Amino acid sequence: MPEEMDLVELRRQFHQYPEPGWCEFLTTVSIVEELERLGVDEIHVGPDALETTERLGVPDEEELSQWFEKAKSETDRMDILTHIEGGNTGAVAVVDRGEGPTIGLRVDIDALPIEESRDSKHTPAAKGFRSNNVGFMHACGHDAHITFGLGTLRAVLESDFSGTFKVFFQPSEELLGGGKPMAAGPHIDDVEYLIGAHIGLDYPTGTVVAGLDGALALSRFDIIFEGESAHAGFAPNDGRNAVQALVTAANDMYGIPRHKEGSTRVNVGNIHSENPANVIAHRATANAEVRGESTELMEYMRDAVYRCLNSAADLHECTVEASLIGESIRQDCDEELVSLVSDVAESIDSTSTVLRRDNLGASEDVTYLLKAVVENGGKGTYIGIGGSNPSGHHTPTFDIDEESLSIGVSVLSQTALELLS
Amino acid sequence: MPEEMDLVELRRQFHQYPEPGWCEFLTTVSIVEELERLGVDEIHVGPDALETTERLGVPDEEELSQWFEKAKSETDRMDILTHIEGGNTGAVAVVDRGEGPTIGLRVDIDALPIEESRDSKHTPAAKGFRSNNVGFMHACGHDAHITFGLGTLRAVLESDFSGTFKVFFQPSEELLGGGKPMAAGPHIDDVEYLIGAHIGLDYPTGTVVAGLDGALALSRFDIIFEGESAHAGFAPNDGRNAVQALVTAANDMYGIPRHKEGSTRVNVGNIHSENPANVIAHRATANAEVRGESTELMEYMRDAVYRCLNSAADLHECTVEASLIGESIRQDCDEELVSLVSDVAESIDSTSTVLRRDNLGASEDVTYLLKAVVENGGKGTYIGIGGSNPSGHHTPTFDIDEESLSIGVSVLSQTALELLS
Amino acid sequence: MPEEMDLVELRRQFHQYPEPGWCEFLTTVSIVEELERLGVDEIHVGPDALETTERLGVPDEEELSQWFEKAKSETDRMDILTHIEGGNTGAVAVVDRGEGPTIGLRVDIDALPIEESRDSKHTPAAKGFRSNNVGFMHACGHDAHITFGLGTLRAVLESDFSGTFKVFFQPSEELLGGGKPMAAGPHIDDVEYLIGAHIGLDYPTGTVVAGLDGALALSRFDIIFEGESAHAGFAPNDGRNAVQALVTAANDMYGIPRHKEGSTRVNVGNIHSENPANVIAHRATANAEVRGESTELMEYMRDAVYRCLNSAADLHECTVEASLIGESIRQDCDEELVSLVSDVAESIDSTSTVLRRDNLGASEDVTYLLKAVVENGGKGTYIGIGGSNPSGHHTPTFDIDEESLSIGVSVLSQTALELLS
Amino acid sequence: MPEEMDLVELRRQFHQYPEPGWCEFLTTVSIVEELERLGVDEIHVGPDALETTERLGVPDEEELSQWFEKAKSETDRMDILTHIEGGNTGAVAVVDRGEGPTIGLRVDIDALPIEESRDSKHTPAAKGFRSNNVGFMHACGHDAHITFGLGTLRAVLESDFSGTFKVFFQPSEELLGGGKPMAAGPHIDDVEYLIGAHIGLDYPTGTVVAGLDGALALSRFDIIFEGESAHAGFAPNDGRNAVQALVTAANDMYGIPRHKEGSTRVNVGNIHSENPANVIAHRATANAEVRGESTELMEYMRDAVYRCLNSAADLHECTVEASLIGESIRQDCDEELVSLVSDVAESIDSTSTVLRRDNLGASEDVTYLLKAVVENGGKGTYIGIGGSNPSGHHTPTFDIDEESLSIGVSVLSQTALELLS
Repeated sequence: MPEEMDLVELRRQFHQYPEPGWCEFLTTVSIVEELERLGVDEIHVGPDALETTERLGVPDEEELSQWFEKAKSETDRMDILTHIEGGNTGAVAVVDRGEGPTIGLRVDIDALPIEESRDSKHTPAAKGFRSNNVGFMHACGHDAHITFGLGTLRAVLESDFSGTFKVFFQPSEELLGGGKPMAAGPHIDDVEYLIGAHIGLDYPTGTVVAGLDGALALSRFDIIFEGESAHAGFAPNDGRNAVQALVTAANDMYGIPRHKEGSTRVNVGNIHSENPANVIAHRATANAEVRGESTELMEYMRDAVYRCLNSAADLHECTVEASLIGESIRQDCDEELVSLVSDVAESIDSTSTVLRRDNLGASEDVTYLLKAVVENGGKGTYIGIGGSNPSGHHTPTFDIDEESLSIGVSVLSQTALELLS
Repeated sequence: MPEEMDLVELRRQFHQYPEPGWCEFLTTVSIVEELERLGVDEIHVGPDALETTERLGVPDEEELSQWFEKAKSETDRMDILTHIEGGNTGAVAVVDRGEGPTIGLRVDIDALPIEESRDSKHTPAAKGFRSNNVGFMHACGHDAHITFGLGTLRAVLESDFSGTFKVFFQPSEELLGGGKPMAAGPHIDDVEYLIGAHIGLDYPTGTVVAGLDGALALSRFDIIFEGESAHAGFAPNDGRNAVQALVTAANDMYGIPRHKEGSTRVNVGNIHSENPANVIAHRATANAEVRGESTELMEYMRDAVYRCLNSAADLHECTVEASLIGESIRQDCDEELVSLVSDVAESIDSTSTVLRRDNLGASEDVTYLLKAVVENGGKGTYIGIGGSNPSGHHTPTFDIDEESLSIGVSVLSQTALELLS
Repeated sequence: MPEEMDLVELRRQFHQYPEPGWCEFLTTVSIVEELERLGVDEIHVGPDALETTERLGVPDEEELSQWFEKAKSETDRMDILTHIEGGNTGAVAVVDRGEGPTIGLRVDIDALPIEESRDSKHTPAAKGFRSNNVGFMHACGHDAHITFGLGTLRAVLESDFSGTFKVFFQPSEELLGGGKPMAAGPHIDDVEYLIGAHIGLDYPTGTVVAGLDGALALSRFDIIFEGESAHAGFAPNDGRNAVQALVTAANDMYGIPRHKEGSTRVNVGNIHSENPANVIAHRATANAEVRGESTELMEYMRDAVYRCLNSAADLHECTVEASLIGESIRQDCDEELVSLVSDVAESIDSTSTVLRRDNLGASEDVTYLLKAVVENGGKGTYIGIGGSNPSGHHTPTFDIDEESLSIGVSVLSQTALELLS
Repeated sequence: MPEEMDLVELRRQFHQYPEPGWCEFLTTVSIVEELERLGVDEIHVGPDALETTERLGVPDEEELSQWFEKAKSETDRMDILTHIEGGNTGAVAVVDRGEGPTIGLRVDIDALPIEESRDSKHTPAAKGFRSNNVGFMHACGHDAHITFGLGTLRAVLESDFSGTFKVFFQPSEELLGGGKPMAAGPHIDDVEYLIGAHIGLDYPTGTVVAGLDGALALSRFDIIFEGESAHAGFAPNDGRNAVQALVTAANDMYGIPRHKEGSTRVNVGNIHSENPANVIAHRATANAEVRGESTELMEYMRDAVYRCLNSAADLHECTVEASLIGESIRQDCDEELVSLVSDVAESIDSTSTVLRRDNLGASEDVTYLLKAVVENGGKGTYIGIGGSNPSGHHTPTFDIDEESLSIGVSVLSQTALELLS
């Protein structure tokens, strides 16, 4: 089977089984099966792949269980499933060829809660590989990223090199929940060069960006205020007003002082309370996020948010619980590695335009892995692989030009091999 | 058929078809049919019974239509249904016996969105007259109130008197939406004495309260802030933040100055926005209410709430829409009429305890009718008819002692006849 | 010397030396000298008269010292001055005639920071007994109250009775600072009947009100937020913003929930910060008060204010200090005692109108003494003695009809003697 | 007289008569007298020098009048004083030598409300040229700037050139009040190259910075809320609470949304209200400022502040008046001109270090003049002239190394002559 076809087929297979963060049960099984087929030396999954206690935004038992049961109905690899039950998805593949540097490639594997288009102009619908999971879709190209990971592994395996090559199949990137635990896991410490990659991003097929960075660091919370209900007419003071606590906190959050070091952000969303107005609310919930031009600025805002929440709870005699559901830091690309990737990309026939650097608009938790490598004295970069997308990321008609799959694999594998030589 | 049995049967019939405010289509038809059976002189329904434009809290087209279709499937009285379509429920019955005073009796006819208990200890379940409308229930005794209205009419019709007797079958009391339009309708102006009545209220069977009043005046709103969404990270200033506008307004509402004339209340409930935190909210909604020891205090708070809403909208460049969905005023009972009712109740064998006055905890829009009568120089009172209720009002196991039906009819009809003599 | 003249002379003497709360040094000396002249059994001053540690709103050292030096320049009674130095003003006189009840009379002795009028229509100016202390004035009739105390003592001493009579000359009523320590002092415990009195209050000469009460309980604070300054342009986050903390707290204070038990009040005044806008404020101060229909409601508000202050300080990483500077509670008059005073007043020729009860608009800390007596099983009332005042209390032209001095002494002494007989 | 001595003497003369913004009456007279001595072609003062209606932060009549009277007592040049009465200080000198470019030099002339040190280590105190105006001081080197202006004029006049040379002696820079009206005045339109200069700034003598810029644009307000007072206990609702309006506005101001284009700032200072807590405040005042990385960001914040003020006033039924008291925009230095100044500075013997560019920390209203020139197609730069200052700007011991006076004149005059050649 010619290589091109194989990558396309792989991508289409994963496209049909999109699973959200920490629920990538079937996805993980399929990845492991492909790794086994490739004859990879070591395959680590679940708690062996990442630091379980650092996971953020893990869904509740019920949601985990629904996706787990669904996966069980599609595969009989209970040996793998048992290991990743309870939201311990993701995998790390290791190929060890003795003395030499350790190179890592990180790809993300989760999907989005978006109902995929059935429009006949939407290729996955027209060609019959549309999502099988109602209400979920690979609308950000992570199906292509998994393919990058597997394709690059195969290309590296087929080459002669000395050193170690690792691929991190990271779960839960969309909610910024998986980067931190993977960076805290057992496989990053010896990585000297780490590369990550994203497809699309409105770059046309053939364009490669050797270093994408500059996104604001970000922290997201789920917030629950709990007080005590009372009749708003008869006994307003008998209640402890969770709505009033929430509006106080939200108000205070927008007023967190600006910081001398640069831009910050704060926003509150998803405010909810069920009490009719004649009841003092016993419960009110919200979702909030803060951002900063640097990790430190994000942390400054995050600390201030906690003060806002606690002081509002104290004021209104409520309790407050804030769960961190996602976080990314700021870690920019290494200039030397950017140069190397740039040179490699220039040397590949199928690329048409090579940009050294560009601004990555969105937050990305690959930054945790990049930072871990840098702290150990290594280098890292996050590469953009153009792939003409007919509509924007996170939309029901998102798709990528499948030509870009082999371009990506070429850039990534040749970069890895360059570093391994 | 002995009278007692008849009242019980009537009540059970209405109990089985509970309909919420402005959706009392079948209820209105059934009342009209009973009135026809009794040979009442004039029957007014729909726009002929109340001032349509003053209705508050009318449900949307879809909800009205569902209840209307349901009613159509149960009765063929399209002559009545056509007249009350679109939420124009309720009726006024008039018996004119020439020269003499005009006496009015007001009863309310709507039900609540509560799923009735199926427990075998719950009499309606045990005896087979439980609600036929899933999720709805006569959980506040308005089925008994309709029975009071019809039973009193029959008793008055069977008596000899000179003057006019009217019964106001008022829709939508639970949401305080029907009192105002009925008071603004064409039938209240000549009423010299108005009596209203409520069953239960935790008074045991045999107890009568000649004057129930003192509830805080109340005003309820639905609030919608609309702004413009934007990415909270990339372009927070491009949005117009509906959540921030709402929390500003809510905060300001709790800070409305206290008033020298007495107690006031304010509360916000049901806050909602759908935006995740990474989107500046384009829409946020809430429900709010204000109360006051007097109508003026309620109006003071209501005006202040409008200022809070408008200034918050101006501040955050949003629009705000506040729909009044219910309102009640304060109107206390007339001392002379309280004495008369008290004397009548004392004279009836089946009553055991007669209280002259007590505090009506909850808001009630009978106050609009009482006030209209008082402004025309008349008098009014709101009577409590004890009816041992095994569980509280507005609970799934609420029920009333059916012995109280004939007691209520006796008190109300003898009071009316006393005034008509 | 005829009695009438004597009272007038006494009042005029005290009128010329007005001293503010806790600075009534010369006033206390003059009272003690009068008590010595009358031959009172026991005279207690300073720490012997009240519980020093409970004093509220004591001025700073500098202000105390200025008034103390002034007093020293007017009298050589260093024996008394030494005892009351440091703001330990006030006195208690005791006359013990053996077996029998213990009756207490409370009068207040402090003046106001008001510059007295020099208008020739203002009697004190015209007759040469205007204030000698620039910027201070007996503008609320406490000069008359001292006279009531001394005149009543004389009248009682001249009578035959059995039991004990005490007069409490209370300092610092205007700022509500002296009632609490006097009620906590050693002389109130055995008092069975306590009477207080106020002159004027817009009642004409000849009117007596046997029971004045109903004022809201009140608590007043001085508030200091301290943070850290920083340049608002270069490094806003380096500061800890005391102005932002104060506005947060003030905002929160206006939003303290209404209470089911009745009316409450809250207000913020005297906000100050010295920082120009380009400096993050390191300090901001304010003055605040809360009131309630009952002592409990005042305490509910006071506790909530502390929560507002502490949570705002926590939020903005500032410290906050709130000093209670004055407080009064609610204690209504005893019905039996009101009847007795009423009867006594009716029996006196010089009274023309006797009201049993009326509403005392302003807060008064006589309530602490009344409450202490009631808690010990005793009874108390606060009496209004009409005294046609040409202009309102607390104005530069306030004055009282001196005819009312002897009326007051008659009512108070005859009430006391009635209770002592 | 050797040049060096002359500049030093000039500077010391101006140092002794510091006057604050818009009160530089004697300063303006002295400048005009020097200009007359130099034989300048045209001298424009008062309304002829700048656009009177654009002045910001003009003191009130009383303050203006005090400084005017002081000036009258020191000079008999009523011809000049009459022209600049009412805060119309400042001057523009024009030297026209026919065909050729028009070059402008801007220097500022106002002093600060700081009491100058009397320490013997403070040179002006030691050498007898300390401030004669109690409480005011040239603590930012504007005395040197005036000297730069006059010295440069003399140097240019003594040279051979063709074209026009103008010096703008700008009043009221410290409060950012004079730049806007001077830029709106009649003398800027034909200027092709504008240079401004500042001494000190912690650069040592001999250092020159060819382009100082990057300061945040800034806008400052005085804010007055007016409502209506009422007794906080008896009738809180009768008031219109100016303190509550101010704290609402301040709270809202800190919550103005962050902007995608860059950093912004907001701060509130100088909050004041005189009401004790028992009075609903009828008046509350504050001072506020906003800043932005660009003029547009400052304007975004300024517009938002107006919304905060107006909506808070509407909410609490108060009026609000916001007077703009100072404003600066962002205008960076022209690269070409920076190069030219750099080259000139390098060529001068007395300079030791030449920096092309550095960040000007503080806001400066020279930006208005720079922008006016740029908008007319011209170029501008703001030059730093090092002058070892023993203590920081705006401190009582601020001083400058007088060696720097001739360095500054050399740099400025040679730059001007370079442009004029």
